[in-house]
Amino acid sequence: MIDVCLPGTGGMIPLPDRWLTCCWIEYQGSAVLIDCGEGTQIALKEAGCKPSRLAVLLITHFHADHVAGLVGLLLTLCNHSRAEPLTVAGPPGLRRVVSSLTIIAPRLTFPLEIIELDKNNPVPLEKAGLTVYAAPLRHGTTCFGYKVELKRKPVFNPQKAAALNIPVTFYKALHNGETVTLDDGETIKPEQVLDGARKPITVCYVTDTRPFAGLAGFAEGVDLLIGEGMYFDEQMREKVEEKNHMLFSDSAELAKKSGAKRLWLTHYSPALERPRDGVKIAERIFPKSEAAYDGIRLTIDG
Amino acid sequence: MIDVCLPGTGGMIPLPDRWLTCCWIEYQGSAVLIDCGEGTQIALKEAGCKPSRLAVLLITHFHADHVAGLVGLLLTLCNHSRAEPLTVAGPPGLRRVVSSLTIIAPRLTFPLEIIELDKNNPVPLEKAGLTVYAAPLRHGTTCFGYKVELKRKPVFNPQKAAALNIPVTFYKALHNGETVTLDDGETIKPEQVLDGARKPITVCYVTDTRPFAGLAGFAEGVDLLIGEGMYFDEQMREKVEEKNHMLFSDSAELAKKSGAKRLWLTHYSPALERPRDGVKIAERIFPKSEAAYDGIRLTIDG
Repeated sequence: MIDVCLPGTGGMIPLPDRWLTCCWIEYQGSAVLIDCGEGTQIALKEAGCKPSRLAVLLITHFHADHVAGLVGLLLTLCNHSRAEPLTVAGPPGLRRVVSSLTIIAPRLTFPLEIIELDKNNPVPLEKAGLTVYAAPLRHGTTCFGYKVELKRKPVFNPQKAAALNIPVTFYKALHNGETVTLDDGETIKPEQVLDGARKPITVCYVTDTRPFAGLAGFAEGVDLLIGEGMYFDEQMREKVEEKNHMLFSDSAELAKKSGAKRLWLTHYSPALERPRDGVKIAERIFPKSEAAYDGIRLTIDG
Repeated sequence: MIDVCLPGTGGMIPLPDRWLTCCWIEYQGSAVLIDCGEGTQIALKEAGCKPSRLAVLLITHFHADHVAGLVGLLLTLCNHSRAEPLTVAGPPGLRRVVSSLTIIAPRLTFPLEIIELDKNNPVPLEKAGLTVYAAPLRHGTTCFGYKVELKRKPVFNPQKAAALNIPVTFYKALHNGETVTLDDGETIKPEQVLDGARKPITVCYVTDTRPFAGLAGFAEGVDLLIGEGMYFDEQMREKVEEKNHMLFSDSAELAKKSGAKRLWLTHYSPALERPRDGVKIAERIFPKSEAAYDGIRLTIDG
């Protein structure tokens, strides 16, 4: 079971009533934050996301609306007397960007583990009980989409175990995938007591980009696709194509092609005052579309 | 006549209901902004301060709560297609700080004129029709207090001019301090038609610092002193002395000693939930004290 929240849903500029887009994914008290524009630390506070739980910060790209709030967040973690390391991952150049931005925060109370992902072949990260996959997007600068996955153990079947006269003390090891030897010397393999594999829980975050072949594969079958919706008006197509962004319809097409279970639209232009007015455009393509708003939350239990 | 506004009044961390301390001083459509922490561009928007009018940004020091919003503000000016130069002045090292922070804003649409003030003997700046004086404070890092002054011409006395039979066409030059020669060859000096000198309008911004001898001289007789009030509880004295900040009573003493006309307290600790509860403490020392709040405004016409 994971909790997902978008503390902000804006693009380009933070507004009095709309924070910049970021995504908080929490699992068992540890959290992944994707992007950190100006004001994100306030957005987290308003949305009830506890910075003390932050384990990993993922940066999609180095445009200011996705990273300018980094220093403020780091210093707030210092004010909370954080001592444990924080992982910060993002595109190549991340080390230099973090080093430059922290010129006004020369001493942190905790170490940073900075991971620059290979822009052509980013290695998955295993952090906070979650697996993070990155995929290069098309945005004119190196930009990653992220997929956060919670792997789930197959369901343990106590009927099967009882039928094999396995003592309860062995259940946990078997459920964890270990082969065990009973007191009478009999060997039991996990598959003898487990039901079939369960699909992981997956959340995919795709902004800022143009759609491209292969993107639907990255988001295949995800429980939640968080997709860019800079505008909904098709008259803005030329502009978003030029600036490498997506319309509501682009994200809805992506959700449809990828077989996502649901879609949250986000990263609205500051000029887009009422994103919900456009949700029907997305719904015609992908019925489970929603125009996200600051603080939107979802618990996904698969 | 100048307009003064504090779009934010917090210290250390921006909060959902309190922006970081900054000060907007506007004169004839041009503005000086003092400090720019995370979220200041949003605070300006909420307070109705138009970034397009910004002529000078003054940075007191390089702690993040006073400067981390710089990049966001610069990029918002770019979004407004600004072309005219922006002056940014502050302590030595400013050039390096701006250069580092703008790693995520490599191309601005306008030039920056960066002025590093001498920390021992900062030269006054003449900008936007105003004069800016800086004074080094005591904060553990180089930090300036700023005094913004609007010089005012003496009042022109038309009775005196009429008595001397001076044609109206000479009034403006005389009011501007020029000596004129009338058609009959007579020379008229400005002092023959002007009333006495008028005091300039002055606003002084003093945070973050401990009080020290000489500070009252810098703020002498100002129309408005904007002074730090990290806490009002005298039990916090040891803490503010250690961290180089001021209590409400410290700023009130400063206002009293300097003969300021009024005092706005600001730069509250995030732990100080209701600054107004402490205003009586300041009023007992300096009656014209006010616990400032986000968006507080004053028009000073001398």
